[in-house]
Amino acid sequence: MKQLSPDFLSAAKDILGPKGWSENPEDLEKVASPWRGTYKGETPFLAKPETTEQTAALVKLCNQHSVAITPQGGNTGLVDAGTPHGEICISMQRMTAIRSVDAVNNSLVIEAGAPLVTAQQAADEAKRLFPLSLGSEGTATIGGLISTNAGGVAVLRYGMMRDLILGLEVVLPSGEIWNGLSGLRKNNTGYDLKHLFAGAEGTLGIITAATLKLFPKVQRVSAWVTCKSAEDVVALLALVRDHAGDTVTSFEIIPANAIAMVQADVPDTRDPLPSDLPWRVLMEVSMSRAAHAREVIEEALGAAYEAELVKDAVIAESVAQAESFWHIRETIPLSKRAYGTALNQDISVPVSRIPDFIDSCNAAILELIPKSEFVIFGHVGDGNLHYSVCEPADASEHVLAGQQSAVFRIIYDQVMAFDGSISAEHGVGRLKRDELERIRPKAATETMRAIKRAIDPNNIMNPQRVIST
Amino acid sequence: MKQLSPDFLSAAKDILGPKGWSENPEDLEKVASPWRGTYKGETPFLAKPETTEQTAALVKLCNQHSVAITPQGGNTGLVDAGTPHGEICISMQRMTAIRSVDAVNNSLVIEAGAPLVTAQQAADEAKRLFPLSLGSEGTATIGGLISTNAGGVAVLRYGMMRDLILGLEVVLPSGEIWNGLSGLRKNNTGYDLKHLFAGAEGTLGIITAATLKLFPKVQRVSAWVTCKSAEDVVALLALVRDHAGDTVTSFEIIPANAIAMVQADVPDTRDPLPSDLPWRVLMEVSMSRAAHAREVIEEALGAAYEAELVKDAVIAESVAQAESFWHIRETIPLSKRAYGTALNQDISVPVSRIPDFIDSCNAAILELIPKSEFVIFGHVGDGNLHYSVCEPADASEHVLAGQQSAVFRIIYDQVMAFDGSISAEHGVGRLKRDELERIRPKAATETMRAIKRAIDPNNIMNPQRVIST
Repeated sequence: MKQLSPDFLSAAKDILGPKGWSENPEDLEKVASPWRGTYKGETPFLAKPETTEQTAALVKLCNQHSVAITPQGGNTGLVDAGTPHGEICISMQRMTAIRSVDAVNNSLVIEAGAPLVTAQQAADEAKRLFPLSLGSEGTATIGGLISTNAGGVAVLRYGMMRDLILGLEVVLPSGEIWNGLSGLRKNNTGYDLKHLFAGAEGTLGIITAATLKLFPKVQRVSAWVTCKSAEDVVALLALVRDHAGDTVTSFEIIPANAIAMVQADVPDTRDPLPSDLPWRVLMEVSMSRAAHAREVIEEALGAAYEAELVKDAVIAESVAQAESFWHIRETIPLSKRAYGTALNQDISVPVSRIPDFIDSCNAAILELIPKSEFVIFGHVGDGNLHYSVCEPADASEHVLAGQQSAVFRIIYDQVMAFDGSISAEHGVGRLKRDELERIRPKAATETMRAIKRAIDPNNIMNPQRVIST
Repeated sequence: MKQLSPDFLSAAKDILGPKGWSENPEDLEKVASPWRGTYKGETPFLAKPETTEQTAALVKLCNQHSVAITPQGGNTGLVDAGTPHGEICISMQRMTAIRSVDAVNNSLVIEAGAPLVTAQQAADEAKRLFPLSLGSEGTATIGGLISTNAGGVAVLRYGMMRDLILGLEVVLPSGEIWNGLSGLRKNNTGYDLKHLFAGAEGTLGIITAATLKLFPKVQRVSAWVTCKSAEDVVALLALVRDHAGDTVTSFEIIPANAIAMVQADVPDTRDPLPSDLPWRVLMEVSMSRAAHAREVIEEALGAAYEAELVKDAVIAESVAQAESFWHIRETIPLSKRAYGTALNQDISVPVSRIPDFIDSCNAAILELIPKSEFVIFGHVGDGNLHYSVCEPADASEHVLAGQQSAVFRIIYDQVMAFDGSISAEHGVGRLKRDELERIRPKAATETMRAIKRAIDPNNIMNPQRVIST
């Protein structure tokens, strides 16, 4: 780990003030240890700026001293983008304010370190909706969600995080502040910089605040159905959208074995519709009137039953019942961890190709490891599957961990053969950087590299994430 | 105008084939003459490539010979971005194919030279909707609409053109082809290049094809109401969204004087609700069922009437009646031209600040030119107004034309004072470049310039549009 000069440290501490930094080994250990624990970093210095101006002054100092920075939000990422590996860590944890709410303009300005739930609650108090929703919403921060362009369960209707921002405030690698906190819905005044910083994983600057888009509140109706094949699940999506249009907010596929896992792991969960069929779909339709939503979902499911696309279906009769459906869905990732070794990928393919992808990819992996089991769940409405290869619970030999590279190689090749993406919503970070440089069109990688060099010529901003330099 | 070398011309003609180029003065004159006629360009050579490969080979040749290029779509832009001023013109007019349609994935791949109406019709044939809609849809091309990030009347619900693309194919200034024609809804694999090319007005590369997002079809219900103030119009928007949620697709403000202009100019138009009040709103709610849309719009307008936000209202009873409402709205820009000198700006402010902006900006202009009249119409749901200053039809002195700079100065300063944008949907081009460099944060301009230099180091791609170099 690079030694920081006394000059740098003294100037940094002056900028940040006594509460704004730490060299305590426990603190340093904590920010270098992401929650999943499959990798670990290190850092010589933790900065906790309280204002955009402090952040800017510190970045300027880093640029002068060629000190590399890893910006950090809630440390919930999955691709090793926000964990320092020798860089100093700039944590946004003290910048959590809501700067303003404008209900008429349907916007709010919030600082980067605020967790997602803060934005959701502020919107709710203004009688509006901030629709991004995902499992880690109590911890994941606005800045991190924008930097990784987070997804979640409502993308089908509302888009990803980049679609939910109107403006950004960013500290550039030079230490200059770009105030682009526009509350405007239309603003064609040059290259759209906010879309460049969104999804850049902190490699082009540090997002310090954002203007978020708010939406009208909606009434939600959830339904849980059983299906006999992935083909039927995809056909069901088209049928439900024929009836409900783009008010279909979520359309999640859940395999039977994941329900068994959740039930074994979380005692009070109950399968809403016990069935021998291999797939369930959890869908949500949301409209300004619950009665309208219920009417279209009932009609859609009636037609689906006639067309033999679903076997059984239950529409939640209460908020509590809907929450019990969603609890199962949200618990899958954690329960899977309890289940033993799992090799996990977050991939997407065109929606129309999901069934063939699953067949083809499973078959290719079974050729390598005949006893593999698959836990495949996620946002089928977006073509996004969380695809996990597991071992049987009673496996006598544990071969999976040793085959990680070969299994990932198969998945990546299969995804590319189906015109898909090997990182749908989790991002690139350090974990997928080299693989993406192998498969991404060379023209795209070269363009990205040219942009990185132009904006961060000294390569201080989260170096070696997203692209190698 | 720069003389092209015989070597360059001969190589370019070889690449393009006999049908792929023109030096005929009439053809050159035509592509240098935009439809509104307020400015005019010139070009020594018109290229009409038939394929992406031809386009790429030609751009590579231009890069080698330092020959500057202006890419052109339908030539309907309003900011002098797509008209050559000495550059060769690469027109996309022969690249109009629909390459594929995937109804299950809700996407289609279309070439850049196809007019918008081609995409709308292809979506319709696949029982889907492509929602972008604007006056020039028969002429404006997909490539131009993406390059300028076009808006139109359905932005409130569906977003702008950049929000409606899943992927792009682009010829880079080096002559390399970036095939980013993804049909994926989720693809976090690096910087989002499509959002950089969208809205770049051809300064970073030539868009040759795009993958467009399709949506479920909807049933539309339009209503026309009269209002006594802009405050009431903004309050009405909030009230209608409380009832109809984000199914409010359009919410257009129309002033009484524009209706008079349209009626004088287009004989068969009829004011749906003659009234002395100064404002009308034309709104549309669209849902998968017309009955639901009608129910929420009726209830919303009932509540608005109770709250005295509207005086009279009529809900269209037929498609023909709805079209007659929309015909008035769409005819305003052309009728205004027939009315005499008008100084036009396309601006946006936060929705909540529209009423104060109108009062303040009108007052400032009346101080300069006491007999000014104002035609203010547009997409109030997006905070986007088309703001025109006119002379009375019976004006004895014509002072307006001579005061253009002073009037624009006032409008720009007022827009900035209300945290707005001086180019909401029309773009930058050459016309607004210098003004934007004056008012845009310096950090943003410098970042844009760094990107331009990194991607187009020889400055051949539509130079001097968007930013000066």
